[in-house]
Amino acid sequence: MHPTVTLAAGRDNRLRGGHPWVYGNEAQMSPALKDLPPGSLVTLADARGGKIGTAFFNPKPLIVARFLDARPNLAIDAGFLRERLAAALALRERLFAQPYYRLVHAEADRLPGLVIDRFGDALTVQLNSAGMDRLEAPLLEALSDLLKPSRIVLRNDSHARITEGLKTGIRAALGGEGPIELMENGARFRCDPLGGQKTGWFYDQRDNRAFVAALAKGKRLIDVYAYIGGFGIEAAVAGAAEVTLVDRSRPAMELAAETAALNGVAGKVSTIVGDAFEVLEQRAGERFDVVVCDPPAFVKSKKDLATGLRAYQKMARLAASLVAPGGILFVASCSHNAPEEEFAKQIGIGLAKAGRGGRILRQAGAGPDHPVHPFLRESAYLKSMTLQLD
Amino acid sequence: MHPTVTLAAGRDNRLRGGHPWVYGNEAQMSPALKDLPPGSLVTLADARGGKIGTAFFNPKPLIVARFLDARPNLAIDAGFLRERLAAALALRERLFAQPYYRLVHAEADRLPGLVIDRFGDALTVQLNSAGMDRLEAPLLEALSDLLKPSRIVLRNDSHARITEGLKTGIRAALGGEGPIELMENGARFRCDPLGGQKTGWFYDQRDNRAFVAALAKGKRLIDVYAYIGGFGIEAAVAGAAEVTLVDRSRPAMELAAETAALNGVAGKVSTIVGDAFEVLEQRAGERFDVVVCDPPAFVKSKKDLATGLRAYQKMARLAASLVAPGGILFVASCSHNAPEEEFAKQIGIGLAKAGRGGRILRQAGAGPDHPVHPFLRESAYLKSMTLQLD
Repeated sequence: MHPTVTLAAGRDNRLRGGHPWVYGNEAQMSPALKDLPPGSLVTLADARGGKIGTAFFNPKPLIVARFLDARPNLAIDAGFLRERLAAALALRERLFAQPYYRLVHAEADRLPGLVIDRFGDALTVQLNSAGMDRLEAPLLEALSDLLKPSRIVLRNDSHARITEGLKTGIRAALGGEGPIELMENGARFRCDPLGGQKTGWFYDQRDNRAFVAALAKGKRLIDVYAYIGGFGIEAAVAGAAEVTLVDRSRPAMELAAETAALNGVAGKVSTIVGDAFEVLEQRAGERFDVVVCDPPAFVKSKKDLATGLRAYQKMARLAASLVAPGGILFVASCSHNAPEEEFAKQIGIGLAKAGRGGRILRQAGAGPDHPVHPFLRESAYLKSMTLQLD
Repeated sequence: MHPTVTLAAGRDNRLRGGHPWVYGNEAQMSPALKDLPPGSLVTLADARGGKIGTAFFNPKPLIVARFLDARPNLAIDAGFLRERLAAALALRERLFAQPYYRLVHAEADRLPGLVIDRFGDALTVQLNSAGMDRLEAPLLEALSDLLKPSRIVLRNDSHARITEGLKTGIRAALGGEGPIELMENGARFRCDPLGGQKTGWFYDQRDNRAFVAALAKGKRLIDVYAYIGGFGIEAAVAGAAEVTLVDRSRPAMELAAETAALNGVAGKVSTIVGDAFEVLEQRAGERFDVVVCDPPAFVKSKKDLATGLRAYQKMARLAASLVAPGGILFVASCSHNAPEEEFAKQIGIGLAKAGRGGRILRQAGAGPDHPVHPFLRESAYLKSMTLQLD
């Protein structure tokens, strides 16, 4: 039997309506509950004792319970996890012809705090809730059973783990070291799941990369936050005439150059190790048909909002100046804390300050392998706009 | 020389920042200005007399001036219009391999109030501002020069024309009667530009139709607001096993049946003349792999907001009940007056009332041939969600 967490009167409505979280002020906390190990399984009950279901419990953070299943006292074992993983896999296999995608996107896949990216037979896993962290062993068992992976890397270095009171670190849970490979929009990439950013690759921009690549045929493109060259190399493979990649990370630029060669487009792709803002300022006066700006989060926390928004405005202003008449500007924000409206407003101001008008062709978040829980729409962190400028 | 419209002090800032509209309370109105014929060309000036550019002027509606160009006293003739149309055409030719698209999307294409859909060598045109209405003759000249169309239909039956104080009506400006043809996502359609809804076809859902069609391979689909069968017939062509189309319009259903035959999928497509809500209720208990709900605007004006939102909720509740476990629900709203947040909230409540959970795979507005002016983001009327339900 799981311990019972009883909600305050009326606080069960949101949960019964489909929302997956309970906040600390909604539960009747007791010393016994506060002593439960973070990530314990509990049965949620309403104030009249009616059972709501099984959840992860963590007394420390703002979100104290994460809903798992409407069956109370449910054992969450490898069998349960395998079933949820199989459903997530079936959806991705319906969406994609090749095994390269975000396999599990946390609450939206009914696996709270679990993020898994798939690279063929290699997996990178983030255990972003205390509950999921405690289930590491049955989870690895379920994954091995379902997918027979040759490598599993635990990328437990997220900020979410700190919020949950968990230790951070990166380690191989299965298999060795070295780069892993993936295909996206017809291009091959290698990335480093142990040393790269986040899970090693950002599948969230897949559809945006395809849209930009199609507009870049026969054109000159510059990407000033290129990481390992996703946008630019896919554009080069799709027929861009000339691609300039900029990133402040020398290893990322070295990997991007290798990747260009791997795809047979080394002759069209050049790399620059440098700061995006500095390069945008240095190249002022030059004209590119396509300018791509997909920066790291400028708004890392709510207190950074004003500074971060100004940075998006500056980025848009400098980048717009480099866009040839009739050319394309792609801008994105992965800041959870920058609301879409605010981001769009700053981009507009940036364009106006650059004296450029135009039109938004596409506004899009992450691709469908990053589904969104219907009651956590605010969790859709990625915002982007593809504009044509006059 | 165009008459001058002088803005109140400080009211030029938004315009100089890129916004294309002047509201009545922002202009220094005079009896002479009030007597100008609706749609007159004017030169806008700031309170210090500094010239801002050329605009359409209409003293009647809330929006009194629509910005055209930063050059003051500019002659807006067939040559000017041809240049703007050519830029709009160049963008669409970059986006699409075939000549079937929204060619001009009003302010976003720097042609205030002008909407043109292209069906090969046939065009449907909406003159939705008094300024554009007065330019009918040079516009038709510019279109003929640029595209050599064989047919031009003026679909001047929009609500926007009433707001602008214009007469409404539909007539052929060039060529005869009869259906026109288009291709979309590999399927052929015929529609009636004189008698159909809006411009005869809704290109705005092109990308959503492709996304849903890809998920419907080998599956059973029902579309309860089918019009002439866009979603369903494209899904059938893409490999759906069985498609049921519902619409209350008998001519639409007859045309849909003919269209299914035209595409060689008549054996998989059945049509029902009926009300969407009634059919959803009648079929309760049945299960479909894909359910499509793309209704006409439920919120026609701001006073309809509460009623319209309840209708979206009811639609989601009834439709969700028909979705097989693991199946797909597509819901859309083309109501200008239903904010995205409100629409999404009602869909969530509808799902909860149906006892169904799931995930949002895609949230998308209209395709890129319906660009959005960066300072009129609220004009992006189309909202949609594609969900997978558990």
